[in-house]
Amino acid sequence: MRSIARGLGLGSAAMALTALTALAWPGTAGAAPSGTASLYAPSALVLGITAGEDAASGTVLRAVTLVCAPRPGGTHPSPAAACAELRANSDRLDAVAKPGRGAACTREWNPVTVTADGVWQGHRMSYSYTFGNPCGLRNTTGALFGF
Amino acid sequence: MRSIARGLGLGSAAMALTALTALAWPGTAGAAPSGTASLYAPSALVLGITAGEDAASGTVLRAVTLVCAPRPGGTHPSPAAACAELRANSDRLDAVAKPGRGAACTREWNPVTVTADGVWQGHRMSYSYTFGNPCGLRNTTGALFGF
Repeated sequence: MRSIARGLGLGSAAMALTALTALAWPGTAGAAPSGTASLYAPSALVLGITAGEDAASGTVLRAVTLVCAPRPGGTHPSPAAACAELRANSDRLDAVAKPGRGAACTREWNPVTVTADGVWQGHRMSYSYTFGNPCGLRNTTGALFGF
Repeated sequence: MRSIARGLGLGSAAMALTALTALAWPGTAGAAPSGTASLYAPSALVLGITAGEDAASGTVLRAVTLVCAPRPGGTHPSPAAACAELRANSDRLDAVAKPGRGAACTREWNPVTVTADGVWQGHRMSYSYTFGNPCGLRNTTGALFGF
């Protein structure tokens, strides 16, 4: 356990993990995908597509779940590809959200916003990106928001 | 579609839904649990347990997904019970988080924080509750954070 905490660069995590995993968790059976609490840093996200440019209060039209640890899963249509993109770009998700260079879109302002909320590698994550209109979303570079 | 938008009390949603569902979504097959984009308001959450009292930057020890529409699912161990609690208490989640009255816990300060992030009935949601120590979490009233 200590080596995992070190690998994540979390100095005080080992103690916290030790304290918490010593508890008898209610409903432990089947709770974590691997059945253990501390062998991997959890990664679970809700990805949404919101009408308009206000991610906080807009109407969410579609939402999927994406789990990346211990293995890709969730209701996302391409969880393995989406998790790979997250691993490669977790600190600059705009790279996989924004439309590709070859996309031919008008400049009409009819915004849609994509969001990613939850936990990524043991830390909470909240991300949003607004497209000028749905054409941009249709031509998103990556698989992450392709649902 | 218009009647659903009305049911949600979202005046401009009908237009937005019309515009977006007219698109050819990439990877639509299998994306939404029901295979359609707009027949229900999405409800998908990531529930986490974080060491300490800082939900924003603390280390997330465990995380599960919970999907409540069109039917309960996700990696939560009791999705049906958790979704029922959310439906009954979505505007006052403290009621299902805090320990029951009969719980016998010390007052030692060793906080753990539970979080819920994602989409609830078509709107983004972010919730957190801090227990003074893990005993409070073990005696949480409801099923929602019992994982």
